Amino acid sequence: MLRTRLDLDRIQAARRVIDPVYLNTPMYRCDALGRRLGCTVSIKLETANPVRSFKGRGTELVTGLLAEQGRTAVVCASAGNLGQALAWSGRRRGLDVTVVASVRAPVAKLDRIRALGAELELVDGDIELARERAVRIAQERGIRLLEDSLDIETCEGAATIGLELTSGETTFDAVLTALGGGAMATGVGYVVKTLAPGAEVICVQPTGAPALTRSWHERRVITTESADTIADGVAGRFPIPEVLDDLLAVADDAVLVRESSIITGMQLLLEHTGLIVEPSAALGVAAVLEDRDRFAGRHIVTVICGSNVDLDAYHRWVRR
Amino acid sequence: MLRTRLDLDRIQAARRVIDPVYLNTPMYRCDALGRRLGCTVSIKLETANPVRSFKGRGTELVTGLLAEQGRTAVVCASAGNLGQALAWSGRRRGLDVTVVASVRAPVAKLDRIRALGAELELVDGDIELARERAVRIAQERGIRLLEDSLDIETCEGAATIGLELTSGETTFDAVLTALGGGAMATGVGYVVKTLAPGAEVICVQPTGAPALTRSWHERRVITTESADTIADGVAGRFPIPEVLDDLLAVADDAVLVRESSIITGMQLLLEHTGLIVEPSAALGVAAVLEDRDRFAGRHIVTVICGSNVDLDAYHRWVRR
Repeated sequence: MLRTRLDLDRIQAARRVIDPVYLNTPMYRCDALGRRLGCTVSIKLETANPVRSFKGRGTELVTGLLAEQGRTAVVCASAGNLGQALAWSGRRRGLDVTVVASVRAPVAKLDRIRALGAELELVDGDIELARERAVRIAQERGIRLLEDSLDIETCEGAATIGLELTSGETTFDAVLTALGGGAMATGVGYVVKTLAPGAEVICVQPTGAPALTRSWHERRVITTESADTIADGVAGRFPIPEVLDDLLAVADDAVLVRESSIITGMQLLLEHTGLIVEPSAALGVAAVLEDRDRFAGRHIVTVICGSNVDLDAYHRWVRR
Repeated sequence: MLRTRLDLDRIQAARRVIDPVYLNTPMYRCDALGRRLGCTVSIKLETANPVRSFKGRGTELVTGLLAEQGRTAVVCASAGNLGQALAWSGRRRGLDVTVVASVRAPVAKLDRIRALGAELELVDGDIELARERAVRIAQERGIRLLEDSLDIETCEGAATIGLELTSGETTFDAVLTALGGGAMATGVGYVVKTLAPGAEVICVQPTGAPALTRSWHERRVITTESADTIADGVAGRFPIPEVLDDLLAVADDAVLVRESSIITGMQLLLEHTGLIVEPSAALGVAAVLEDRDRFAGRHIVTVICGSNVDLDAYHRWVRR
């Protein structure tokens, strides 16, 4: 029994609250990518939905509870994907949604948050400043603050991915997930270690935004002064203690990858799977690229967690 | 009761034969694309699987039957997608697969057929010459010839898409499918007209490869001397009489679209859904672009039927 804040019964029940459009996402083997990487590669595709990321699983859960409680408004800080998902789920349930984001977030993400009808407030700073501002808005307005990775619904929503990974006949040796605030890594990790304990859970973060990975290795919260990565979705600096505790319980490893590997990962996903992904979604492939011996001949699953990317930046990176 | 060669019970039973990796594909509303097109747009995404097209549904069915019958080999002519799917399904069941294709087929499609272990024979001509050559190979070797759209399994495999379109809570006013040989159009059309008869079934073909569309309008087989379109997957010239009969029974309309509209369709799908698709998959969007009044305010579903495209050609077309 893993000691975490997550609960398998609640995660299973979550599937009944989440709009089916976010559930039972494609999972399939990519032979060409596997040949290139020297291992068997399956992808779990979380981008073929109205918000193009896995975040809808968590926001469906949160807004479902808010609607039940008769709440009418919610605010979150977001690097861009959580905000879109909360806007989508909130609109569906008649909630007023406010999203605080960095002025430096991808334009595509900001535009889509607005298009979904949310109030968007921009801060001239990074996700950590946005988090501070969201706290103040919640206090001033007396509304629910949704905190990514801290609020258990965000972790348990993401954890439903783990149910799907382990429900089929396919077995795998390792699952690689992006590591940002930790919601997906702890959620998926918890379910995999509970239902398929033989599989390794490996979290991947960019070298330029290593706070939670360093914290995991040192088993205490380590913050960083700055974060510098194209993987905007995982560029936090202040790990949350409760999330670190969960991650220590469920992750087998946390690794850092270079920006150049993330870019090669995006290129390989385009070339061999035909998918345009945002940088965070290429972290798993990047980790294999940087340690091919570790994965040689094994079957890995990597979660393609988002495809909200500015196309101009994307084409600059992948040069196609 | 529609008079066609298709059978609803068999189509429902087909779901038990087809590998689940091809079933229950994503279907979701694309608000941004809908705003751009002036209607509500949902896409049914048939590209997130090991062969990146819907063709696996049909080849699973065919190879399942062949394996049951103890057959060991099969040959087909293919524009590229059927060949990949047959190679995938055949490999899974230990069948020897031969694919005949045009030397002018997209390199990506040809490479992937070979990579899946099929014997690939190229003809210096179009799909119609490939069809002739496949017939001869089948005769010479005494093996099963799989004929796309003529063999009922290819239609009934594709028809399982129709079951998924009509099984949810979502209702729609029209479904737009690419029209090539007719397997998908008759398959999807048959199920939609049977289970959701209020929805229009609209088939879309390029102006440069209009044989089956013209045949549908004139209610008799019309062949063309040549076919000239970037939508390589639907560039046939010799409609099959049995398929035309089925199409006459299930389609409400068949329309032709210009190459420039197909390209704009691909651009819009990239911009507003983040998907790279092959030209055939953009035919539905192209049809809306060419007749916006017809679809204004209505809810259309379009099947994104394939994403096997040469990236160089793709970027030349969409200029990104």
